[in-house]
Amino acid sequence: MFKINKTNTSPKIKNPILIEGLPGIGNVGKIALDFMIDNLEAKKIFEIKSKKFPNSVFINENNLAELPKIEIFHKKIKNTDLLLLSGDIQPIEDESCYDFCEKILDLFQEFNGKEIITLGGIGLSQPPENPKVFCTANTKKIIQKYKKNNKINTNLFGLVGPIMGVSGLLLGLGKERNIPSISLLAETYGHPSYLGIKGAREILKRLNKSLSLSLNLKDLDKEIKEIKKEIKHINALQKIKKPKNPGINYIG
Amino acid sequence: MFKINKTNTSPKIKNPILIEGLPGIGNVGKIALDFMIDNLEAKKIFEIKSKKFPNSVFINENNLAELPKIEIFHKKIKNTDLLLLSGDIQPIEDESCYDFCEKILDLFQEFNGKEIITLGGIGLSQPPENPKVFCTANTKKIIQKYKKNNKINTNLFGLVGPIMGVSGLLLGLGKERNIPSISLLAETYGHPSYLGIKGAREILKRLNKSLSLSLNLKDLDKEIKEIKKEIKHINALQKIKKPKNPGINYIG
Amino acid sequence: MFKINKTNTSPKIKNPILIEGLPGIGNVGKIALDFMIDNLEAKKIFEIKSKKFPNSVFINENNLAELPKIEIFHKKIKNTDLLLLSGDIQPIEDESCYDFCEKILDLFQEFNGKEIITLGGIGLSQPPENPKVFCTANTKKIIQKYKKNNKINTNLFGLVGPIMGVSGLLLGLGKERNIPSISLLAETYGHPSYLGIKGAREILKRLNKSLSLSLNLKDLDKEIKEIKKEIKHINALQKIKKPKNPGINYIG
Amino acid sequence: MFKINKTNTSPKIKNPILIEGLPGIGNVGKIALDFMIDNLEAKKIFEIKSKKFPNSVFINENNLAELPKIEIFHKKIKNTDLLLLSGDIQPIEDESCYDFCEKILDLFQEFNGKEIITLGGIGLSQPPENPKVFCTANTKKIIQKYKKNNKINTNLFGLVGPIMGVSGLLLGLGKERNIPSISLLAETYGHPSYLGIKGAREILKRLNKSLSLSLNLKDLDKEIKEIKKEIKHINALQKIKKPKNPGINYIG
Repeated sequence: MFKINKTNTSPKIKNPILIEGLPGIGNVGKIALDFMIDNLEAKKIFEIKSKKFPNSVFINENNLAELPKIEIFHKKIKNTDLLLLSGDIQPIEDESCYDFCEKILDLFQEFNGKEIITLGGIGLSQPPENPKVFCTANTKKIIQKYKKNNKINTNLFGLVGPIMGVSGLLLGLGKERNIPSISLLAETYGHPSYLGIKGAREILKRLNKSLSLSLNLKDLDKEIKEIKKEIKHINALQKIKKPKNPGINYIG
Repeated sequence: MFKINKTNTSPKIKNPILIEGLPGIGNVGKIALDFMIDNLEAKKIFEIKSKKFPNSVFINENNLAELPKIEIFHKKIKNTDLLLLSGDIQPIEDESCYDFCEKILDLFQEFNGKEIITLGGIGLSQPPENPKVFCTANTKKIIQKYKKNNKINTNLFGLVGPIMGVSGLLLGLGKERNIPSISLLAETYGHPSYLGIKGAREILKRLNKSLSLSLNLKDLDKEIKEIKKEIKHINALQKIKKPKNPGINYIG
Repeated sequence: MFKINKTNTSPKIKNPILIEGLPGIGNVGKIALDFMIDNLEAKKIFEIKSKKFPNSVFINENNLAELPKIEIFHKKIKNTDLLLLSGDIQPIEDESCYDFCEKILDLFQEFNGKEIITLGGIGLSQPPENPKVFCTANTKKIIQKYKKNNKINTNLFGLVGPIMGVSGLLLGLGKERNIPSISLLAETYGHPSYLGIKGAREILKRLNKSLSLSLNLKDLDKEIKEIKKEIKHINALQKIKKPKNPGINYIG
Repeated sequence: MFKINKTNTSPKIKNPILIEGLPGIGNVGKIALDFMIDNLEAKKIFEIKSKKFPNSVFINENNLAELPKIEIFHKKIKNTDLLLLSGDIQPIEDESCYDFCEKILDLFQEFNGKEIITLGGIGLSQPPENPKVFCTANTKKIIQKYKKNNKINTNLFGLVGPIMGVSGLLLGLGKERNIPSISLLAETYGHPSYLGIKGAREILKRLNKSLSLSLNLKDLDKEIKEIKKEIKHINALQKIKKPKNPGINYIG
């Protein structure tokens, strides 16, 4: 179903941290991750296309048609290997999403991966002025690590519904394999065409500090135009599943 | 698809009675069963996770993310082994639901299981003051047994539509294997956020008598708050299928 | 997927005519066929249950729960073996429906089956006073045979959309196997709770003549009450797929 | 899943150009391609039926029922072999659509196929007076070839959403196999019952010039009545998937 193709001579990777940011609520995770890839000049090392993805192509800036794909980029920051999981879409169906995540975890464990960070948004009914960042994880220890010197809320229980898609399943399936995994979730606006740039910035600040990434966050403002065009396509490609219960904020 | 994992050194189990209470209309079955598990201090012996379940995690009271799961608990009451089937979700798709039930029946027959009781709600258009309890079954004999000394209505024919999901299929597939199986269904309110606690209590009273469980039903009131929080998550996770015909009360 | 189970010592069957009447628009086909089974005192010889059917049980007149099933009855009329295909539901998904029909055709060919007649309704926007009967087929010859001495319209082209489900596929897949097959379709009202008894009667009249069945059509009126109860369940169980184009009458 | 059946002694085919025109927005592609097949008197050489297609039959002009099918016609124009891919429906599901396109590409490569042209419509919110033709492709070179002496716009990026279905996937999957492939897309009206004849004519003009087909485009007007009847059926058979984002024009 999901074959991971090498697109480059792979560098030596040891005990990497995997950071995931696929399309979702407000596209917070995708905006944050794609900015990291650009700003860190990370190198693409893997690519995944699949007949489980939408049966569509989208048109890129050169007017050429492209299959939807998910990619993994690599960047070494000091002694830490980062694997950055980005993409045009998420596997939609329950079973495909499980299969996809298991495949990613298999690859991650081949490199003796250390920990996983998934990024996403919490959809509010109004655009937030100053979005807060929340987290959940599959161990208490990793929460302590990322809360250190960072303002991250941990009281999600009872406030939100399930975390859907890859951001959620990597935590759940990571637990089964004893991989410490955390999800950083920024408040954003739940409207499908809203771009969660503010929320993405808040997540990037936290990662910048915790992982000493030396990101230049001023560049995020410059890139907003390009992001808008790209997200337009992604919104058309993906079909976001939302929980049925409208009284609960949603996450993804 | 559905692997049943042992989570504990399994006790000796002989000719058990299986009682099922998964999420459904008013969550009557789940509320009743989870109360039994707590009140009887039953011990978890099996756990089922599956890529056929929703591709989501939900956040527990420790702010940690958990995969949806279905569990089987055990309690010996006098000489009767009870197996209690509880969970966060139901397998949704037709085929998955059949596969899941066959798997449960396989396990049940390994222990030379005696009979099956499934619990559920009948969704009314108004919250009932004094919910009645109805039953259907796959043999006439088991109906007689549970009606003895208990007020249980048996005139469901023509009043309600099909019994959907695990509660229904265990009866239908149980019949194919000659396993006497009964479904106890309490009236409740069909609204998705309604908690069928009153209906659950009526079912618990009947089970208490028929199986001599010595449940302390006063504790049910104390646990209402905790139940409310938990059900909130379950409502977000599950997608309840309802029959298309609006003129018929629904069951599940 | 679809296993056909013998439920009886099968009689000698040679060159049978298969008549199908499963739930569909106005339940015309089902009403007509179930009446034939009763009135001819046909004997059940096969039964099909499947995990491709709805994951529900319905409650019968004895207050017992039953899995949805499809059945084949047999009756010898003079020298003609009739196989009567009746059921609670239709396989819904495209692929399941193809698989199911191939299975029925396999069985039919084991008996060197002669021809197939499928029964259905054409959904009008008003209940028709005097429903007309139309036909389509997979050869011109079989149309001539059934039109002889019978008032059957043949100008369906351009008037109606596709014939959906088993009634349609048996014709299409029958063609691939060179089995002469015809569909008799009576006008009825497209509303989900409408019972197409008038349309069923018109179809029964035509079959009575063409196949010399000696049906007592007066009994149809007496059985209306029983039919109503049964159809109520079927409506709840089945999910009828309708074509998207509202300007076209639908068939099924 | 998809077996391609020979329906005729196949002619010698070498380095063909494949042109696809299946049902889609305004049925522009289908109208254009079916006209080419008629006007060029192309010969049917392959036929595909599949249980992945809708579980329906439709009724043809002889009042006979037919399974939905996809066909490949052949015509030699001077030294160029044309393969013309036409049909009643498109494979709807993501995975089926990928499988179908891979199958078509396998066949295409058996003949050492040269290039692929897919035809479709861009759905506007108003019927266009003078529909423009756009293109996208999987290489820049093939765009240059078809733009030569033809008025074809290439600025689709940012204007439209994804290209869905076979028209899109043949480009995307063609790229993986290094098959130069282009999609010609004419503006049309997005309403389900609108016939994109004007758009089809614009596409046919471009193909006429680029491939020196000597089509008699005056005949297109004469055939409109027949087209209307046929499309009526197709609309009923197919279920067109549209992107969720209403702010974006759609393509297919």
